Amino acid sequence: MPIVKIDMLEGKTAEQKEKLVIALYKAFEENQIPKEWVTILFNDNPVENWAVGGEMLSEKIKKE
Amino acid sequence: MPIVKIDMLEGKTAEQKEKLVIALYKAFEENQIPKEWVTILFNDNPVENWAVGGEMLSEKIKKE
Amino acid sequence: MPIVKIDMLEGKTAEQKEKLVIALYKAFEENQIPKEWVTILFNDNPVENWAVGGEMLSEKIKKE
Amino acid sequence: MPIVKIDMLEGKTAEQKEKLVIALYKAFEENQIPKEWVTILFNDNPVENWAVGGEMLSEKIKKE
Amino acid sequence: MPIVKIDMLEGKTAEQKEKLVIALYKAFEENQIPKEWVTILFNDNPVENWAVGGEMLSEKIKKE
Amino acid sequence: MPIVKIDMLEGKTAEQKEKLVIALYKAFEENQIPKEWVTILFNDNPVENWAVGGEMLSEKIKKE
Repeated sequence: MPIVKIDMLEGKTAEQKEKLVIALYKAFEENQIPKEWVTILFNDNPVENWAVGGEMLSEKIKKE
Repeated sequence: MPIVKIDMLEGKTAEQKEKLVIALYKAFEENQIPKEWVTILFNDNPVENWAVGGEMLSEKIKKE
Repeated sequence: MPIVKIDMLEGKTAEQKEKLVIALYKAFEENQIPKEWVTILFNDNPVENWAVGGEMLSEKIKKE
Repeated sequence: MPIVKIDMLEGKTAEQKEKLVIALYKAFEENQIPKEWVTILFNDNPVENWAVGGEMLSEKIKKE
Repeated sequence: MPIVKIDMLEGKTAEQKEKLVIALYKAFEENQIPKEWVTILFNDNPVENWAVGGEMLSEKIKKE
Repeated sequence: MPIVKIDMLEGKTAEQKEKLVIALYKAFEENQIPKEWVTILFNDNPVENWAVGGEMLSEKIKKE
């Protein structure tokens, strides 16, 4: 039954998402939650849609 | 007041969404929830953003 | 695959939710979306957690 | 820790979002919630994905 | 139309939420978004349901 | 930046959630996503709030 929604910064390839999905399913199985029950849904978000720690993510990235 | 968020696989047309919206509003009204109170919001998700039942949706579709 | 999340005001009984679920599944089926694919999840929210139309829902209800 | 997700109609510019973010962070700070703790995430939704008050948002806009 | 969902740590009183709501509506209005259009919904989450920065929030709080 | 929201059936202990969190963070790290960036938030849902595969979860469980 678990529904896992993951908001990420856009830019991950389908292959990167698949590798992450495999690792996440392994994490659930190690915790006695059969992967057959788990739905995972990614949401790709452009950088201008995020603000973290008090400022736009785009500003934060510029400073680093 | 109800807020209904529907994550779907992308590809539905505006017309298909409108027909579904009409049917959903009817379902709420049959249950004494006035449609004036209900907000419905679709989110279209590409196939590579879903994993169900332990594998990427794109893999599952290939097998069927 | 559709995932339907419904935020409602708390207070609906399990029986009221079940009746609404049956009506919603019917709405999906009428639109060629098999009910076997659809997950529905309610979230019950207390009145003090909502604000609509510019004021707390609790204030709005008092006025009506 | 607060996570703020804002579903809006698409069309806001990055500059408009940044101004809104600044105002929202100010609102949190005035309520003793340090902006360093708050994540804000916008989701831009096309008009055909919304239904409010019993009809598609696109219909509602036409009438106004 | 904007829908604002705010996941917070549980413990805020109804009065604290109302003050925050007023400030948030002001933020939207300052950005030409009429408060009549905006729905705000809080979700109160217990400390054991959060993990931030690589550890359970309960662990993080203990260290501070 | 990733925000991971996990809707689960209520009943997991704080200890079970912590073990799952550790495994999920490991999954992100194996995929070059530093755990310092990732927020995880569980939402515990009672059985009467779920419907899957066309029926209430409570009905489904009775049959198994």
